[in-house]
Amino acid sequence: MRAEIISIGNELLSGDTLNTNTYYITRRLTELGIDVFYHTSVNDDVHILKDVIDISLRRVDLVIFTGGLGPTYDDMTKEVVSSTLGLKLILNDELKEALEDRFRKNNRKMTPNNLKQVYIPEGAKYLINEIGTAPGIFLEWNDKVIVMLPGPPKEMKTMFDKYVIPLIKQDNIIEEKIIKTIGIGESQLESAIEDIIKENKDVYIATFAKEGIVDIKIVVKGKNKDKLEKLLDDTIRKIRSRIGNYIYSYEDERIEEVVFKILKKKNMKIAFCESCTGGLIASKFTRIPGVSEVFDRALVTYSNTSKMEELNVSPDTLIKHGAVSKETAYEMAKGLMEKTGVDVALSVTGIAGPSGGSDTKPVGLVYIGICTKESSKVIESIFNGDRVSIQNRTYLKAFNELRKYLLLEC
Amino acid sequence: MRAEIISIGNELLSGDTLNTNTYYITRRLTELGIDVFYHTSVNDDVHILKDVIDISLRRVDLVIFTGGLGPTYDDMTKEVVSSTLGLKLILNDELKEALEDRFRKNNRKMTPNNLKQVYIPEGAKYLINEIGTAPGIFLEWNDKVIVMLPGPPKEMKTMFDKYVIPLIKQDNIIEEKIIKTIGIGESQLESAIEDIIKENKDVYIATFAKEGIVDIKIVVKGKNKDKLEKLLDDTIRKIRSRIGNYIYSYEDERIEEVVFKILKKKNMKIAFCESCTGGLIASKFTRIPGVSEVFDRALVTYSNTSKMEELNVSPDTLIKHGAVSKETAYEMAKGLMEKTGVDVALSVTGIAGPSGGSDTKPVGLVYIGICTKESSKVIESIFNGDRVSIQNRTYLKAFNELRKYLLLEC
Repeated sequence: MRAEIISIGNELLSGDTLNTNTYYITRRLTELGIDVFYHTSVNDDVHILKDVIDISLRRVDLVIFTGGLGPTYDDMTKEVVSSTLGLKLILNDELKEALEDRFRKNNRKMTPNNLKQVYIPEGAKYLINEIGTAPGIFLEWNDKVIVMLPGPPKEMKTMFDKYVIPLIKQDNIIEEKIIKTIGIGESQLESAIEDIIKENKDVYIATFAKEGIVDIKIVVKGKNKDKLEKLLDDTIRKIRSRIGNYIYSYEDERIEEVVFKILKKKNMKIAFCESCTGGLIASKFTRIPGVSEVFDRALVTYSNTSKMEELNVSPDTLIKHGAVSKETAYEMAKGLMEKTGVDVALSVTGIAGPSGGSDTKPVGLVYIGICTKESSKVIESIFNGDRVSIQNRTYLKAFNELRKYLLLEC
Repeated sequence: MRAEIISIGNELLSGDTLNTNTYYITRRLTELGIDVFYHTSVNDDVHILKDVIDISLRRVDLVIFTGGLGPTYDDMTKEVVSSTLGLKLILNDELKEALEDRFRKNNRKMTPNNLKQVYIPEGAKYLINEIGTAPGIFLEWNDKVIVMLPGPPKEMKTMFDKYVIPLIKQDNIIEEKIIKTIGIGESQLESAIEDIIKENKDVYIATFAKEGIVDIKIVVKGKNKDKLEKLLDDTIRKIRSRIGNYIYSYEDERIEEVVFKILKKKNMKIAFCESCTGGLIASKFTRIPGVSEVFDRALVTYSNTSKMEELNVSPDTLIKHGAVSKETAYEMAKGLMEKTGVDVALSVTGIAGPSGGSDTKPVGLVYIGICTKESSKVIESIFNGDRVSIQNRTYLKAFNELRKYLLLEC
């Protein structure tokens, strides 16, 4: 099946809006084994739109439109597609009732132009819009499948996942899973599982890298649910046997959320002290709702004075070993433990750059210290990249080291 | 002039890569007054590519290609465009020498396939690639302008701004400026300056909103540099007279960078104590290289205990007024001043949600305290949105209040 995605809207052609809809639909179709051959974007213009529809119907089997389904006069996707195909638009009573109901419930007066949204091309199915007012359209016409979706990304995504996928996946059942990894590069990961990726045409495996995290998406399709679940489990088991060390979760969650859950389960309190990450670790952690259950405080001890005053790091250690050293990282974590009485303390000290590096202590050198009442550990790392990326990689590594330490030692 | 942007690359049609190149070029062309009518993306496939070139030459005057200029066999943009137009590819000696030189300097052996990159269509100009190896192409052909740019965004952007703009802006001089605002919504801003936006067709004004910040981009074009500069100045003066209160900079910089520069100029040291922002303020500040010149430390006093222990907030205040109160914000900032001896201390306490709100103290209520040796101030705000957006808006407002306080009171 060859597909084209046509997005319609002046905001795309004036550079106001980045086209994330096309990206999303392309990913989803690829996962389902449908090949996307063309992306097209145009303004709301009758003649232009008519031309791109004609071109599209000559070259693909599945056309997915986004945008131009709303109530205003410049929303014309449904009208132009219908007239190009020679189909009448027919008022749909269910849609009319649902729309009137929606306005009534929200205590808003429905202006007459809204009624434009309840007409659908003859022979088409409508797709429910759970978020906005404009329904989508699903139409089979002369061996072609034509889908029209609203432009606002939230409306489009919800409608696509819930109503379009079941219609275009044919008789197949689709099961999907995500594996989250940390500390392994995308190309290294891909070569490690290359044969698994290519092994079975009913198993789609793709990797997505973003700032030190690589996600592995696995989608299986087929007719038998039990067989599919087994296939998914087998695939995950194979991947784990190759790169298990780098996996931090089998759910779509961030590394700090994993640490939060472990701490909550173990009923432990944590505190952080950060130098080169400057509060990044604490700020990522406190984005989690309810974090106060496990989080006491964080100290961003940037200056040497603050390391001594706040964490009781000894002046001798700072002079002899420097602020960026195994010894300082240890004393920071230990000082924080003693000061706060938490169950686990994490410290970070390093050189984020661009200046401050030397031959023996280059930019990117980072020490991560972990201390509990019973034990402690300091990890040395060297990260490449600019200041922001060294800070980001340190934050990811710090939580991953915490995760492993909490699981193994606590 | 009607333009089409054609991006070529399997990574776009498999959903691996979001198409930011097309977005960037569209924005830049719109600023120059060139209307973009079509976006098209296709795979590296000879027949498909030939078809979209034919279609494009029938409907626009300017075609900009991105991608497919590299050394491998599946990079075929130049080859297919040339053959479609009936143009020969000719080896360019300057490019050959430059490429060989580049490999020599990097101590890398040049594989023969790289030579593919030094051929250009007859009658074309080449565009220097300052970052990568593949040069771009600029070609005037039968009243059409055809531009080919490399796919990697950094290479593309540099080449576009430096070499393509001067060639397509005709005899015009282009001057541009950015105004950064905070605390005003995009639609409110647009209505306040609507008449200025529409006033003069040689002045292009667009707004871009992102998480509490709205940028105003102003681009003027014409033949006379002095007149243009006056036009730009006049436009900025008019905009300032309408919304001057919300402007924090006339440079493309973040609010925390403005605060950093003021502190540096005034030779002042700062410290932060944060509750609901959880380290976000410190982490944004410490992304700035060289921040240690003005930054001493930050304390993320999340628990009440830590507010008392670290900042000497009185238990009575916490009981009587609560952790989220004007009084606590003041005592936090004052406590931090006394503890650290910095010149200015900033405190933040609030309810980021989703839980923890009440009728008198709803989710989104935030107090920002500023304290110097001579004076102090507490600002009450209510922010809408989810936890992350309340934290983000608090961080922006905190730095903006700091900026104003430092300029007016210090």
